[in-house]
Amino acid sequence: MAKGITKRSDDYAKWYTDVIFAAQLADYAPVRGCMVIRPNGYAIWEKMQQALDRLFKETGHVNAYFPLFIPESFMKKEAEHVEGFAPECAVVTHGGGKELEEPLYVRPTSETIIWSMYKDWIQSYRDLPILINQWANVVRWEMRTRLFLRTTEFLWQEGHTAHATAEEAEAETRQMLEVYRHFAETYMAMPVIAGLKTEKEKFAGAVWTYCIEAMMQDRRALQAGTSHNLGQNFAKAFDVTYQTEAGTREYVWATSWGVSTRLIGALIMTHSDDQGLVVPPKLAPLQTVFVPIWHGDDERARALERADALTSEWKDRLSFKIDDRENYRPGWKFNEWEKRGVPIRIEMGPKDLEKDVVVLVRRDTGEKREVPQSGLLEVVLKTLDDIQQSLYDRALKYREEYTFYEDDYDAFKKKIEDPGGFFWIHWCGDRACEDRLQDETKATIRAIPLDKIEEEGRCLLCGKPSHERVLAAKAY
Amino acid sequence: MAKGITKRSDDYAKWYTDVIFAAQLADYAPVRGCMVIRPNGYAIWEKMQQALDRLFKETGHVNAYFPLFIPESFMKKEAEHVEGFAPECAVVTHGGGKELEEPLYVRPTSETIIWSMYKDWIQSYRDLPILINQWANVVRWEMRTRLFLRTTEFLWQEGHTAHATAEEAEAETRQMLEVYRHFAETYMAMPVIAGLKTEKEKFAGAVWTYCIEAMMQDRRALQAGTSHNLGQNFAKAFDVTYQTEAGTREYVWATSWGVSTRLIGALIMTHSDDQGLVVPPKLAPLQTVFVPIWHGDDERARALERADALTSEWKDRLSFKIDDRENYRPGWKFNEWEKRGVPIRIEMGPKDLEKDVVVLVRRDTGEKREVPQSGLLEVVLKTLDDIQQSLYDRALKYREEYTFYEDDYDAFKKKIEDPGGFFWIHWCGDRACEDRLQDETKATIRAIPLDKIEEEGRCLLCGKPSHERVLAAKAY
Repeated sequence: MAKGITKRSDDYAKWYTDVIFAAQLADYAPVRGCMVIRPNGYAIWEKMQQALDRLFKETGHVNAYFPLFIPESFMKKEAEHVEGFAPECAVVTHGGGKELEEPLYVRPTSETIIWSMYKDWIQSYRDLPILINQWANVVRWEMRTRLFLRTTEFLWQEGHTAHATAEEAEAETRQMLEVYRHFAETYMAMPVIAGLKTEKEKFAGAVWTYCIEAMMQDRRALQAGTSHNLGQNFAKAFDVTYQTEAGTREYVWATSWGVSTRLIGALIMTHSDDQGLVVPPKLAPLQTVFVPIWHGDDERARALERADALTSEWKDRLSFKIDDRENYRPGWKFNEWEKRGVPIRIEMGPKDLEKDVVVLVRRDTGEKREVPQSGLLEVVLKTLDDIQQSLYDRALKYREEYTFYEDDYDAFKKKIEDPGGFFWIHWCGDRACEDRLQDETKATIRAIPLDKIEEEGRCLLCGKPSHERVLAAKAY
Repeated sequence: MAKGITKRSDDYAKWYTDVIFAAQLADYAPVRGCMVIRPNGYAIWEKMQQALDRLFKETGHVNAYFPLFIPESFMKKEAEHVEGFAPECAVVTHGGGKELEEPLYVRPTSETIIWSMYKDWIQSYRDLPILINQWANVVRWEMRTRLFLRTTEFLWQEGHTAHATAEEAEAETRQMLEVYRHFAETYMAMPVIAGLKTEKEKFAGAVWTYCIEAMMQDRRALQAGTSHNLGQNFAKAFDVTYQTEAGTREYVWATSWGVSTRLIGALIMTHSDDQGLVVPPKLAPLQTVFVPIWHGDDERARALERADALTSEWKDRLSFKIDDRENYRPGWKFNEWEKRGVPIRIEMGPKDLEKDVVVLVRRDTGEKREVPQSGLLEVVLKTLDDIQQSLYDRALKYREEYTFYEDDYDAFKKKIEDPGGFFWIHWCGDRACEDRLQDETKATIRAIPLDKIEEEGRCLLCGKPSHERVLAAKAY
């Protein structure tokens, strides 16, 4: 066991927090439910932002920025929306030393403020579509908070698009879900199930909500991203119509979609181990650390000279660092970089230097192997690719191992406790059965999968006929 | 005059707003004093962020994120700070449906929340320096607001560093001022005067404040960036000490520094003209627009084919767009790109196509010239460089034209009204004279320049001896 990190098998929740503190990813803030994202954690968020922002722009989106504050009256314009969000809002009542005439809500999400602007910006079909994304902070007053997973303030991106037709809006909703799936699987090395939320679980104000759900190492589900088809709900709430090519006026169709710093929590819980953080190479701020080992100044000079020479062509190919610190021992450094999740560590002692080899250590498997110094860059790049793929494969294998087709409610109730996992169950579609499932087992219906499992069966709860399976799990 | 844009000479303030709306950079938000940064404006901010972020990282800084909310008690820990900022804060009194025990201030700046964390993070000299920057939104309740220049909420970056010695902190303060000067002059093509603020004008909580000041086209000064030496003020307020190498304990030394979306306002007012926005190439989201001209489908196909061929190697060298829209006329397109400030427009009509030439139009000068299609990329790149340099030269020439050495107070009072400008005046250093200057002329002392103008003279106000000149101007 790494110093200061609880084993996963002993206390998973404590392990999670220990990993975060050991890698200095975040800290508790002195404001209730808020966190500080420390430089090591923020660097991962920056990598996520870069990748997502590129994917958004490649699909035609542009960024903008809307106000933090939303007038109370705006929140109230969409009935479901205000019911869902108002109770968890922070409210500004005073500004510039005076009580405000109308309280301002700190945005929990920006549909209302954005659609109040779209009303001015949209006149005709020529103004559509609008494909805007915003990187921002939002606030939702949370009772029980956990670093990254659930904090009162968090960072996210929220896309808000406006379309001329229902078909276009649905195509956009599905496209962005696919962007999230691609990002989760390709960059985060995190396999996900893509599906539709139930009426109970959908976004407050959406017609329907798509989601991606991932399995964490404690076999709970984590909702990693959502894409909402808002229909004409917000257009109607804010009276946003456009003139069609035919000259008629119609309400505009809308979508919204978002992922947040919660993804960092998902990343930690998908890949990390009892030694600390594990980060997939594509999102690692530091992909390789080179640790030369020396005794005395002469050896140090030789080792650093060789390390410099070996890495002279690396700069544009990967992010790396030569750990030349004098006041720390090699063993301390190894442990430090391990805790911080750097994918590859390269060790080079005086004997390695003589033999023209280095020792390459993989963070994901702990595997150590001797590698010739000649051609090292290619081996490192190849190994980074291998790690990325192998993290994905391992996570997928784990998910498959703990995914069950369960048709017996008593068996379900036992297995959801131990070992837990993803359960494909039959459900009749009734809210009553969904509520009962949650009340009795704390599991929820996470998704009605897009890759449908069509099969005749009987509802796990009431026994009524069901034509397809849905995904049930305990969730974060 | 461009349609919809007031002439600068008619009404400078209205011209400024007209340029913003014509280029769709921003819009008024339905929340008092807030703005919406539209995609065209946000794209400029993204270019600014990229350049600044690279400069910060090259000087060893890392990014992090601290909470939006600051407990009231924290604000009150530094006496000058709370006096300066509390009156302009937005205050959250309710959260999650309940009244809070302690009101939370929406950050107007983050010194207090950050130093409350540094207390935990700093134990020994080994933990120093801390070189953290944050990209964030902040709120300052403003009475009179103007798009970009002064809004209740704005976006900015704030650096907050911690050091072992006063010398290091001062070196950091000066280094970041130099980064800002470099950014303003090299990227924004905006010459600046670097200097020290007077006691009256310094940041609330700083020991002293450095600034860069630029001249706008109405000859007023605009403070474009500030870098504060905070001494041990915040370390003492939050009791942040460190163990020195010698084993003693000392208070930590601090700096903070920031620039904001106000820079977009500065950019507009430095370069734009009566036709609309002018953006220097280094910050232009779109550097060149290619407008093929055609009559009929055959010509259109040929024109677009040629435009594609001519720009096939451009992708990694500059940002450009081929305007292939069918539903707009060439003249409309020219006007549109002009208003949006794209540095180079390339026109190619059927005759140009036959002659293997294009017409290249510079946005800054309006100059049109025929250019051979062969070797076009090199001409475009060279012209972008020329525009960048020539915008800087033009702005510098303008500033020099309206910079005066004035020793007669009556003459000063007249000239500050008409034509206005930068005035190098003698000042005795007394607050009373500084206040009187402002009361009687609305001019303020903008900076005590780093490039000192040492010269014996007499205070413009009271006639007492003065040994150097300071910069006075009316300011935004």
